[in-house]
Amino acid sequence: MLLQKGQKLLFIGDSITDCDRAKPVGEGLFGALGKGYVSLVDSLLQAIYPELGIRVVNTGLSGNTVVDLEARWQEDVIDRKPDWLVVMIGTNDVWRQYDTPFITDGHVYKDQYEATLRKLVAETKPHLQGGLVLMTPFFIESNEQDAMRRTMDEYGAIVRSVAADYGTQFIDTQAAFNEVLKELYSATLAWDRVHPTQAGHAVLARAFLNKIGFEWNRN
Amino acid sequence: MLLQKGQKLLFIGDSITDCDRAKPVGEGLFGALGKGYVSLVDSLLQAIYPELGIRVVNTGLSGNTVVDLEARWQEDVIDRKPDWLVVMIGTNDVWRQYDTPFITDGHVYKDQYEATLRKLVAETKPHLQGGLVLMTPFFIESNEQDAMRRTMDEYGAIVRSVAADYGTQFIDTQAAFNEVLKELYSATLAWDRVHPTQAGHAVLARAFLNKIGFEWNRN
Amino acid sequence: MLLQKGQKLLFIGDSITDCDRAKPVGEGLFGALGKGYVSLVDSLLQAIYPELGIRVVNTGLSGNTVVDLEARWQEDVIDRKPDWLVVMIGTNDVWRQYDTPFITDGHVYKDQYEATLRKLVAETKPHLQGGLVLMTPFFIESNEQDAMRRTMDEYGAIVRSVAADYGTQFIDTQAAFNEVLKELYSATLAWDRVHPTQAGHAVLARAFLNKIGFEWNRN
Amino acid sequence: MLLQKGQKLLFIGDSITDCDRAKPVGEGLFGALGKGYVSLVDSLLQAIYPELGIRVVNTGLSGNTVVDLEARWQEDVIDRKPDWLVVMIGTNDVWRQYDTPFITDGHVYKDQYEATLRKLVAETKPHLQGGLVLMTPFFIESNEQDAMRRTMDEYGAIVRSVAADYGTQFIDTQAAFNEVLKELYSATLAWDRVHPTQAGHAVLARAFLNKIGFEWNRN
Amino acid sequence: MLLQKGQKLLFIGDSITDCDRAKPVGEGLFGALGKGYVSLVDSLLQAIYPELGIRVVNTGLSGNTVVDLEARWQEDVIDRKPDWLVVMIGTNDVWRQYDTPFITDGHVYKDQYEATLRKLVAETKPHLQGGLVLMTPFFIESNEQDAMRRTMDEYGAIVRSVAADYGTQFIDTQAAFNEVLKELYSATLAWDRVHPTQAGHAVLARAFLNKIGFEWNRN
Amino acid sequence: MLLQKGQKLLFIGDSITDCDRAKPVGEGLFGALGKGYVSLVDSLLQAIYPELGIRVVNTGLSGNTVVDLEARWQEDVIDRKPDWLVVMIGTNDVWRQYDTPFITDGHVYKDQYEATLRKLVAETKPHLQGGLVLMTPFFIESNEQDAMRRTMDEYGAIVRSVAADYGTQFIDTQAAFNEVLKELYSATLAWDRVHPTQAGHAVLARAFLNKIGFEWNRN
Amino acid sequence: MLLQKGQKLLFIGDSITDCDRAKPVGEGLFGALGKGYVSLVDSLLQAIYPELGIRVVNTGLSGNTVVDLEARWQEDVIDRKPDWLVVMIGTNDVWRQYDTPFITDGHVYKDQYEATLRKLVAETKPHLQGGLVLMTPFFIESNEQDAMRRTMDEYGAIVRSVAADYGTQFIDTQAAFNEVLKELYSATLAWDRVHPTQAGHAVLARAFLNKIGFEWNRN
Amino acid sequence: MLLQKGQKLLFIGDSITDCDRAKPVGEGLFGALGKGYVSLVDSLLQAIYPELGIRVVNTGLSGNTVVDLEARWQEDVIDRKPDWLVVMIGTNDVWRQYDTPFITDGHVYKDQYEATLRKLVAETKPHLQGGLVLMTPFFIESNEQDAMRRTMDEYGAIVRSVAADYGTQFIDTQAAFNEVLKELYSATLAWDRVHPTQAGHAVLARAFLNKIGFEWNRN
Repeated sequence: MLLQKGQKLLFIGDSITDCDRAKPVGEGLFGALGKGYVSLVDSLLQAIYPELGIRVVNTGLSGNTVVDLEARWQEDVIDRKPDWLVVMIGTNDVWRQYDTPFITDGHVYKDQYEATLRKLVAETKPHLQGGLVLMTPFFIESNEQDAMRRTMDEYGAIVRSVAADYGTQFIDTQAAFNEVLKELYSATLAWDRVHPTQAGHAVLARAFLNKIGFEWNRN
Repeated sequence: MLLQKGQKLLFIGDSITDCDRAKPVGEGLFGALGKGYVSLVDSLLQAIYPELGIRVVNTGLSGNTVVDLEARWQEDVIDRKPDWLVVMIGTNDVWRQYDTPFITDGHVYKDQYEATLRKLVAETKPHLQGGLVLMTPFFIESNEQDAMRRTMDEYGAIVRSVAADYGTQFIDTQAAFNEVLKELYSATLAWDRVHPTQAGHAVLARAFLNKIGFEWNRN
Repeated sequence: MLLQKGQKLLFIGDSITDCDRAKPVGEGLFGALGKGYVSLVDSLLQAIYPELGIRVVNTGLSGNTVVDLEARWQEDVIDRKPDWLVVMIGTNDVWRQYDTPFITDGHVYKDQYEATLRKLVAETKPHLQGGLVLMTPFFIESNEQDAMRRTMDEYGAIVRSVAADYGTQFIDTQAAFNEVLKELYSATLAWDRVHPTQAGHAVLARAFLNKIGFEWNRN
Repeated sequence: MLLQKGQKLLFIGDSITDCDRAKPVGEGLFGALGKGYVSLVDSLLQAIYPELGIRVVNTGLSGNTVVDLEARWQEDVIDRKPDWLVVMIGTNDVWRQYDTPFITDGHVYKDQYEATLRKLVAETKPHLQGGLVLMTPFFIESNEQDAMRRTMDEYGAIVRSVAADYGTQFIDTQAAFNEVLKELYSATLAWDRVHPTQAGHAVLARAFLNKIGFEWNRN
Repeated sequence: MLLQKGQKLLFIGDSITDCDRAKPVGEGLFGALGKGYVSLVDSLLQAIYPELGIRVVNTGLSGNTVVDLEARWQEDVIDRKPDWLVVMIGTNDVWRQYDTPFITDGHVYKDQYEATLRKLVAETKPHLQGGLVLMTPFFIESNEQDAMRRTMDEYGAIVRSVAADYGTQFIDTQAAFNEVLKELYSATLAWDRVHPTQAGHAVLARAFLNKIGFEWNRN
Repeated sequence: MLLQKGQKLLFIGDSITDCDRAKPVGEGLFGALGKGYVSLVDSLLQAIYPELGIRVVNTGLSGNTVVDLEARWQEDVIDRKPDWLVVMIGTNDVWRQYDTPFITDGHVYKDQYEATLRKLVAETKPHLQGGLVLMTPFFIESNEQDAMRRTMDEYGAIVRSVAADYGTQFIDTQAAFNEVLKELYSATLAWDRVHPTQAGHAVLARAFLNKIGFEWNRN
Repeated sequence: MLLQKGQKLLFIGDSITDCDRAKPVGEGLFGALGKGYVSLVDSLLQAIYPELGIRVVNTGLSGNTVVDLEARWQEDVIDRKPDWLVVMIGTNDVWRQYDTPFITDGHVYKDQYEATLRKLVAETKPHLQGGLVLMTPFFIESNEQDAMRRTMDEYGAIVRSVAADYGTQFIDTQAAFNEVLKELYSATLAWDRVHPTQAGHAVLARAFLNKIGFEWNRN
Repeated sequence: MLLQKGQKLLFIGDSITDCDRAKPVGEGLFGALGKGYVSLVDSLLQAIYPELGIRVVNTGLSGNTVVDLEARWQEDVIDRKPDWLVVMIGTNDVWRQYDTPFITDGHVYKDQYEATLRKLVAETKPHLQGGLVLMTPFFIESNEQDAMRRTMDEYGAIVRSVAADYGTQFIDTQAAFNEVLKELYSATLAWDRVHPTQAGHAVLARAFLNKIGFEWNRN
């Protein structure tokens, strides 16, 4: 288990992270962490590693792109002084190119995506006592030739290269979903192929937990 | 123009027909026809052929399969005495096989779909002074190899054969959407590939209107 | 077709344009364009001319007069940099003279109406790559001797003269409604003779589309 | 003053009578009589003739035609044992012919209107200790050539003839509105020319009160 | 009739004036004048004197004392430039002494009440083209020895003396209610003896209208 | 203390008893006993006599008269098998005579009040292991000559005589309020002189508790 | 893994099972399984064993005791034909003895609890193709001498003995919580010691999954 | 009775004091004092000592710790100029250590608690004409070895020592609850052992009233 006693673990991202978390601060009782994979990670850590006392914070915000993250990075990441930081961003950067193709202001293309992500990682990593986890965005579609899936894969490749260059933890969420998509059609996991059901969030939570050395049957 | 003065034109189907129509009866003022292609058809008929006085009625119901239509056919079709009847059904018959694959009770497979549709057409066509229009279900996905698209195409083929056997009007809605999908990605027309945006409803309305001899610039 | 690939088409006006559009910006998914003729124009353009990628924006605001337009013109027209601009205003300028005759502060009389409209047209037309379309206000009443209809016709005549003087596109919406009023009583198209039903919005959309060279059966 | 101490005065009609009265019984405190002319009549009677103790009951129902009145006549008129009965009906009988002309089921034509009204008057008048007041329906439109106004006037003439034949009180509400329409445009009194503003309800209340011998400055 | 063509008539006061009027400005369509005596005055003026075109404005505010009026006098009276001004205040100044006797901060005693009222009248009367009407507060209780009634009578006497000293119109609303209280118990006119039913508002409206020379049967 | 371990104590009455209790059964957690004197009695019994385990049930219903009690007596009293029964009824029997004097159907006059109360007491008393407590209705008005107070006193006298005849406990609630009215004006205890503030409910609770031998400082 | 392809797994119980599931049937998309451990079990099964196609159904109902289960057993268990059945009941049977001790009607004592549970198990087990899992009720309190904890342990012992007698699967949920209570105070897992946080539901889900042979890292 | 005529009695604290009081100021009619012990104290003082005219003010705020009190002390205590001040604080200072142990920012440990409380008492006591009452926080749990109960007792001991050092009134609320806990299990008085039922609030009100010399049967 990479996490250590008393560390603060902060998640940032878009609606997949947000999932109706408490605002302005996503931590505490009464479902403050939302209904998605962040809450699932927290509940499994607390149930199985209660002695670690990990403090989970959710600062995901629906509709965000990497550009939106940059605008609130100081307040929502740096000022909160996390030990571990988890970033999963890119869904909206890509999606807007496909659902509102004519409104080009809302698109974040690859160059801007990569430059912004690199900048955020570079300036934040030194401050983290624990570590930094970069998760790719994903598209719950098994056809690799699908136009939006293809673009999402390109953004995922950028995340992979950033993670490699800065030596961070890396999670290929698309690969995790691909395993399940061998058995289930995309509509079972997400009506719009973007917002997962609870089962989809379990895929994400498991991918994250395995990366940080979590053991289901530790005791 | 096939429609004649004073005729009643009744639409039945699922959520794509329903679109938040008035309940229990979908006709009259104040958006009673819902927000989808039925209302669009009605407004263009009234604006361009006002002298015809066509009475449009919407009895679509969200979530319905052909089995659900059968259960309310007497009340919602026969008893309302339409001159023209338009049927577009099958989305949910197929979708449930893909979004809740384990709950097999909710699936309507091809045999049952075809048998039920034939029965309804056979018993209703003789009563119609105007005509009967069968529209295929559709899936707003350009990849013909996609599993759900493939199944939907099979259901569409059944509609085509029923239309041919009973000599009804036939509209291939999937073909109409395919034209637009050459230019636009599916997410532009429907987030979940099933429920169209207003643009998608315009595709449906145009396909229907062209079939009945509507002319945009008649006067 | 006068519109060209990738152009931005902006509509401004009162409640007939607004129709419950998204605020502050009327563009994007989920009914952001409202429920009126603007959305209808957008859906037909997208369905039949998808390759053009026209970006439609709605900045109508309920209750506005031409004086209100002037106050927000910089923000809602100039700053949004449209290629095409469509203006339909005057309903409230006239209506307040008839529904609250004692509250004269709210009336916009002909001189002010004309002067303001001319000023807006003069300063905006040079910035438009595409074109400018002026639509008259209208009153859904067939009796030309009706007091409010007569006044509305005078405002319509002002729009016509402004269009002629500045060489813009011009649409006589009153004439378009008059065609339908030969067949239908006003109450069928609008309970209050001002806010059209969907059929009334279809009349407006068709008048607009025909003016810009739209062809229903282009392909 | 025709009303006598302790009498029950019952109003029946459509939305103009209803005006959001309490359901199922429109009498008592807390606005139970609604917001229209019935409440106005009651408040002036109580303020100026408090010693009479007139009991006012409102059984108007929005959307009702004379056919709907017939269906609930026993329960809402006879069983409530009024001393005085006031009937104002016909708006919807006529209006449906103009706002939804294709849905002919909802129209109540002149023959049926007259026959039904006569039947109700004939069977009820003998039970009334006080009297019966028939009020015409009205259309707040000054143009007598307007199609709907013309029809409404025909229904008003029927009411007049029924009143004459049965010797009931008769109020020409159209005439009362015509007086005001000489000074004010219809939109000042009713946006849709049917549902009056408070000023319009004052016109109705005054016409009624004058008919029953009410004196504003009696004491 | 004292009011002249085109004059603006402004009412200010507490909840009895307010009656759920539109905020921030109480004038215009759709019940903007509230549900109390102000709306009743307006509707009778409009119905019976339509040619005068009186513009009625309601700036009553629930819970106000004369001290609250003073604080918003510039904005809600002077800046609105009325021709006629009607002031009815004092209910809360007195009531707080009786319903929350221990919270003395909320009480406005006689000296302050009189001084403030005089100041407002003195500075406003010169600006009024039409006139100024002072209405007493009232308490719907017939027992003159009742403690709160006695106090209210004292405040009424102050209003009377101010009216006399400044030569304004004066209305003794308590006297108007006393007439009705001879016949009806207080609970019939107001559950809490303060907020009148519609009948109570009719008493107020009639007292006001008679004072300004209104004739019910003028024509 | 008259109450014994494990007894069930049931209160029935009108809105003063009801006070927003849970429906259909007013007992249990989460404010099920309402916000009035019943809840206050329960909380003091539980706090000071916890070892007695008294089960309090509230079946008061807003607007009830003694006639309404009779209609639900079997279900709401007999079937619930109380050991002690507390009845406070009569407010509405009297009030309707004063707030809606013209609607005589709603009045319960003295003869009917007494006969009904006697019948209920007679048939119920034998079933009660503990005892029966009759509380008078009250009117929070210090003027004994007030018409409604005078009537309420007459109904109170009936309760006293019934209690005497059947040997039940008797509580003169009017007398209890009179004590407080020496110091406080009625508006401090109840805006409408009927529905008490919390202080008024404390008066009722104390009167009841003292009657059953409750001691504030028992231990 | 004990579950086999295509089996139906039905959970029944009280609010801890219910957790705001869809009514009347708790299965399908859109959170139909509620927000508790049942949904967690389902999402982990679907994410990690997607090829099994397990159909999870939730019929928990807030506030239920074993007596309530018995009343709806035919409809909610037998008629749904599960392959596997999971029962966790007893919380309310015990809790009512402690939170509303005076309302003894709501208590289910040990004899009745055991007899009813035995009857349900005996009549159901033969119908189950998969298996039957009995989970103890629990109380999130570490003090074994606490009165309610002691009683809950006795009910848990009954479940253990029933499971042994009928050869069903058995889960000691109290033991699972006790492990976590060594590290965390009860308030971290449940404010009222009964309704678990998400972490508490994770404890339950894990206990269940381990019992049926689930492996977190199977692939 | 220690309270004297016309004094202002101000309560400050957390949710147990707040109980849904009016904001921003908790005084006046219509339940402004909330639903807890403050309202109970007020109603008993008003009912039994009406001549004293005690003005009760509630400034409790849910979730507050002593640190939060300090931040609003000037505005909510000093500026309101009470004669008597009642402080009950500490619940959240302790609870956060047990329900969200990992979020240490929210914890107020003993040193800070004591220092802050001493500072507030020292600077406020000289301003009070009446007196200062310090009430301990409490935990409705009878097991003295329970971790949170033990901590709460330590905070209670701090309150006791502060009261002794400054010569204020002191109330041991834990002792008051312990008396009742001999008879009732904690769940009867508070589901979460923190927020009392009405019975629990009666325990608090009685402890307070007895301390200030209140006599239930004074007259």
